[in-house]
Amino acid sequence: MTEQIGILGGGSWGTALGILLANKGYGVQIWLRDKNQIEEMNNSRINKKYLPNTVLPSNLKLTNDLEEVNYKKDLIVLSVGTQGIREVLENSKPYIKRDQVIVNVSKGIENKTLLRISQIVEEIVPNSKYAIISGPSHAEEVAKDMPTTVVSASKDKEVAEYVQDLFITPSFRVYTNPDVIGVELGGALKNVIALGAGISDGLGWGDNTKAALMTRGIFEMARLGEKMGAQASTFLGLAGIGDLIVTCTSMHSRNRRAGILIGQGIKIDDAIRQIGMVVEGIKTAKSTFELSKKYNINMPITEEIYGVIYEGKDVKDSVSNLMIRDRKHEMENIVLENNNLW
Amino acid sequence: MTEQIGILGGGSWGTALGILLANKGYGVQIWLRDKNQIEEMNNSRINKKYLPNTVLPSNLKLTNDLEEVNYKKDLIVLSVGTQGIREVLENSKPYIKRDQVIVNVSKGIENKTLLRISQIVEEIVPNSKYAIISGPSHAEEVAKDMPTTVVSASKDKEVAEYVQDLFITPSFRVYTNPDVIGVELGGALKNVIALGAGISDGLGWGDNTKAALMTRGIFEMARLGEKMGAQASTFLGLAGIGDLIVTCTSMHSRNRRAGILIGQGIKIDDAIRQIGMVVEGIKTAKSTFELSKKYNINMPITEEIYGVIYEGKDVKDSVSNLMIRDRKHEMENIVLENNNLW
Repeated sequence: MTEQIGILGGGSWGTALGILLANKGYGVQIWLRDKNQIEEMNNSRINKKYLPNTVLPSNLKLTNDLEEVNYKKDLIVLSVGTQGIREVLENSKPYIKRDQVIVNVSKGIENKTLLRISQIVEEIVPNSKYAIISGPSHAEEVAKDMPTTVVSASKDKEVAEYVQDLFITPSFRVYTNPDVIGVELGGALKNVIALGAGISDGLGWGDNTKAALMTRGIFEMARLGEKMGAQASTFLGLAGIGDLIVTCTSMHSRNRRAGILIGQGIKIDDAIRQIGMVVEGIKTAKSTFELSKKYNINMPITEEIYGVIYEGKDVKDSVSNLMIRDRKHEMENIVLENNNLW
Repeated sequence: MTEQIGILGGGSWGTALGILLANKGYGVQIWLRDKNQIEEMNNSRINKKYLPNTVLPSNLKLTNDLEEVNYKKDLIVLSVGTQGIREVLENSKPYIKRDQVIVNVSKGIENKTLLRISQIVEEIVPNSKYAIISGPSHAEEVAKDMPTTVVSASKDKEVAEYVQDLFITPSFRVYTNPDVIGVELGGALKNVIALGAGISDGLGWGDNTKAALMTRGIFEMARLGEKMGAQASTFLGLAGIGDLIVTCTSMHSRNRRAGILIGQGIKIDDAIRQIGMVVEGIKTAKSTFELSKKYNINMPITEEIYGVIYEGKDVKDSVSNLMIRDRKHEMENIVLENNNLW
């Protein structure tokens, strides 16, 4: 029987994945909160707000009913902004069955609890078959069938492979990975670094500066990750460096674009308004800063970004701080391997 | 007494570093092969061909005499295209003294011998005080004082620190690193991946595709590096990922620009002509391919780039090959750490 898939959230990524799955012949239904948007999308067969250049296939259905989107689905995709996931899941809980697979495709850390999304899911729907898809995958490019690679991570190998088989296409390559913690943190923390990369661009600094920030960024991500139980190697893969690179260098990245505006001297709230979609890194900067304190990990980039966003620190001073730190030996504080030839 | 520095080679990087050192007050002399270029530069006080937007400080002198450029210098900078280093060093050998420090800033592997530059130096000037400067550092941006970070690597900690002190400025941060092999290989091998990244851009593919190529690229670089005696962690630092990122994403990168032209269907020789400067990656692709065979390391990206450049393989087929490989688990073949949660 044809697989049936429900997608919670119709932003650009939820819509792009819905299109991909519908084009594979599965039954797909996307849940959106806004009835007007559904009507508009049903009439135009386009998600004008979030993915304006791609026509929705006819087997992609829309609903604003949580019971309906979850009903008789083999797989449920969570594609809601991180801070809204708890509410949508709580409201979906009565309709979710134990054998349904839950795939999260959002990237963030809940502000009020500092929980990763798998932990939120575990609280609300315990013992569910959970996987996460992450990697360098801007929705706009996936919708255009640009070659893209992601990982499907789950504690349960069978679940990871089921999700892999379901999503894979010749241009959308899905690799499996057992490290849920690392994949979740990679996707979340990189948005903070991307704000920093954007700020560097906005200040008019060059590619040299940004590459340095990104290189140090992946280190501080891996440092925190290891302390939280992730495998350092995950940060070297698609869900780490891969996603970091695409987020820091592509104009598709909302986090980078928000950073550029902030670097140009635009106020945070105005920058967010100008982007017009969720800028996960703004919220994640807060969670990550708090995690760095909780786990006692030195995260200089995150700290400066937090200072800029939440403490009104001067953006130029902050990024300059990162350049003139006293560190002398390159591999100081490195966690991944001892570098002790001297 | 003021430090005296001789620079062999007046391309964009040699010139930018000469300007940086002269601005610090050191005595700097650049050796160029071409008398006409020297005259032109002495008249205009600009390196029109390679660094047209920066005026040369008055304490930066030019010569085409190898004896003069090496005479009474504390430090000699090697800034010649890799395939030309042996000849220039052989001709300089009579004038180089044992206590002079030699700093290489070129990135490549000699085609006919597969030697790294430190090994060439060791052959011609044995037991010299050798260091290498590498990292994400486009000359055009360094000349504009954009914040930049590099590493100074030497087997000899004192030499690494001497070079660090000599080059460091508030916007040019120099970190030390003991892993000469890793730093040399990082700088060289990344140019091959940058050709691939450029080809992907030239084919019209997206940021997702390029990020995937770069992520896999750093793995194959690290795999070969470890086998050749480098530390894997070096590939995660400025001379590895940092330099890879800047080379694959910046329009300052000649290797990336050559790749873009090749991806657009322009013939290799025409692409090189259009760039008008040394495209190290073209030569390095050959050396790296041969090293991968010698050390029996699987390097799929390098192999495809080699096929495109030296065997006339179709560029679209080649890069497509990289996307549809059968690998299933993300961390297959990873050398850096075992990822065995399952």
